[in-house]
Amino acid sequence: MQTLHWDGSVIKAIDQCLLPHQEVVLSLDDVDGLIAAIQRLAIRGAPALGVAGALGVALSARLRTGDGRLDEEAVRADAERIASARPTAVNLRWGVTRALSVLSEGAAAVEAEALRVLEEDERVNHDASSRAADLIIDLCPSRPLRVLTHCNAGGLATAGKWGTALGAVFELAARGAVESVVVDETRPLLQGARLTAWELGRAGIPYRLCVDSAAASLMKRGLVDCVIVGADRIAANGDVANKIGTYSLAVNAAHHRIPMIVVAPESTVDEELADGDLIVIEERAADEVRSAHGVLVAPADAEAFNPAFDVTPAELLTAVVTERRVMARAALPARVR
Amino acid sequence: MQTLHWDGSVIKAIDQCLLPHQEVVLSLDDVDGLIAAIQRLAIRGAPALGVAGALGVALSARLRTGDGRLDEEAVRADAERIASARPTAVNLRWGVTRALSVLSEGAAAVEAEALRVLEEDERVNHDASSRAADLIIDLCPSRPLRVLTHCNAGGLATAGKWGTALGAVFELAARGAVESVVVDETRPLLQGARLTAWELGRAGIPYRLCVDSAAASLMKRGLVDCVIVGADRIAANGDVANKIGTYSLAVNAAHHRIPMIVVAPESTVDEELADGDLIVIEERAADEVRSAHGVLVAPADAEAFNPAFDVTPAELLTAVVTERRVMARAALPARVR
Repeated sequence: MQTLHWDGSVIKAIDQCLLPHQEVVLSLDDVDGLIAAIQRLAIRGAPALGVAGALGVALSARLRTGDGRLDEEAVRADAERIASARPTAVNLRWGVTRALSVLSEGAAAVEAEALRVLEEDERVNHDASSRAADLIIDLCPSRPLRVLTHCNAGGLATAGKWGTALGAVFELAARGAVESVVVDETRPLLQGARLTAWELGRAGIPYRLCVDSAAASLMKRGLVDCVIVGADRIAANGDVANKIGTYSLAVNAAHHRIPMIVVAPESTVDEELADGDLIVIEERAADEVRSAHGVLVAPADAEAFNPAFDVTPAELLTAVVTERRVMARAALPARVR
Repeated sequence: MQTLHWDGSVIKAIDQCLLPHQEVVLSLDDVDGLIAAIQRLAIRGAPALGVAGALGVALSARLRTGDGRLDEEAVRADAERIASARPTAVNLRWGVTRALSVLSEGAAAVEAEALRVLEEDERVNHDASSRAADLIIDLCPSRPLRVLTHCNAGGLATAGKWGTALGAVFELAARGAVESVVVDETRPLLQGARLTAWELGRAGIPYRLCVDSAAASLMKRGLVDCVIVGADRIAANGDVANKIGTYSLAVNAAHHRIPMIVVAPESTVDEELADGDLIVIEERAADEVRSAHGVLVAPADAEAFNPAFDVTPAELLTAVVTERRVMARAALPARVR
């Protein structure tokens, strides 16, 4: 099963809100439907959003072509709505921009460019995760490894079946270097418990779930050799926006001298932003916190903070790895030098 | 509404598993029912467990008296089962031991001693929380304060209506020193979202919920002036076992130079234990993590780490406050000296 694909006229996407209990494939045949799917996180994950952005423009170009004439202005308006459907992941606008770049050549050219974005995705993520695996093998003396990950940066966060951070885990497992994975459940939307657990189970890699706040205690107990996460936007200086909770993990990993590695495609790097303070953080509905998997748990009138992401300063990270480079920090933790 | 009381023959307890949506009072008329209520966390919170332990022995002594004769051996067996119903909170055994100390004087004496434990609870917690409020006023220059708390150390964690850590918040609010409270939801059993939110709402103190992993990010954004939590067991050196997630908060509070204060009765201090490494940590069922408020969220066969508590070393805490003393650390964070 592929997370995202294009069947020639519609976008097919696994509905990630329904996993792990139901495997439903959405058929998205208009731009509004795509935007709604992105906003309710049926499609999520920075690399997948890049592909969805490109495919969305291809869909728009197809729908906005009549009598052999493409309404470029209408496509550009659709493209802007898609690109701004969620504010933090820069990949969404990157994918939209890629597809728009050939708009003047017509709908077929846009579709071809979107398909290139789709095809590149899996290769790029393989390259990034393979490079991350090499680095982790170098950094972490103990073997097999107990790896901790947060949220889902697996195949479900990309168009394909591999992933970025979880791709590195798959790569390490293929090399016989993984004992087990600690999976942060990742409240509020439980992408760890629902999606990462599902992917690891299918891959036959042993894992144990934990509540997010237990990760630090597991580090203290010596049960974590390495933390591997994805990214939603990386500033030019290496500061990383990722799922809420990543920053807390980074502070704790640094405190315990445990390497923390970010794996992401270059399309996640936003060279326009000098540092992470400039990254816009999406604040989502309080209902996500008041509820757990659709069940109200708190008082119905409770207010909530619900930032979808946080920003981790580069100096807390051991390395940021893409398909092209390792943005390593000057000061690796003492234990991993 | 009082969390726990004794009506002369049965223990009455608010069923904390059903809050905030249902307010149901349990009538516990035998020891097995009490133990089951403690194990499923219908009765929870270290101070409340102390009172429940004492009342449980009173209940046993009443039931084990026939024809004017008290079966001491049977009461001692019941008492041991109550005291070991949960391993981490030392208060449970402390309360049992208090009531047992007068066993040779008969059931009426045991009942009277248990009622003394009950009556002392609210006064002791008032004293501890008032002392903590004094300290926090001294330590935190900004006013009004944005306080963060974890789990529930309110009236619901004690026999009465006041609490320990949340008692300090109530005390600070009564002095006009609280702007608002950040409430960690406290997965897996959501005592923050369910119980602390409910108590703060009833008290009319503004609060906002957050997922546990967001606390660090809120500290980084300057939205937290002070962290106040309770304790389940305190070692002689000041190391503190408390709800899972407390350790992560302590590491983050230290990193951000935010004072972190523990408030608890002296009955939580276990002078027998030299340090926190000796504290037994209860590992609870994986189902609590696989599910959220009774709804399965993860794959049904997912394994999980589910430690109910973690241990925070004394050096990460600003102070541990009881009704008798402030166990202050030598090294207060620079910002709060």
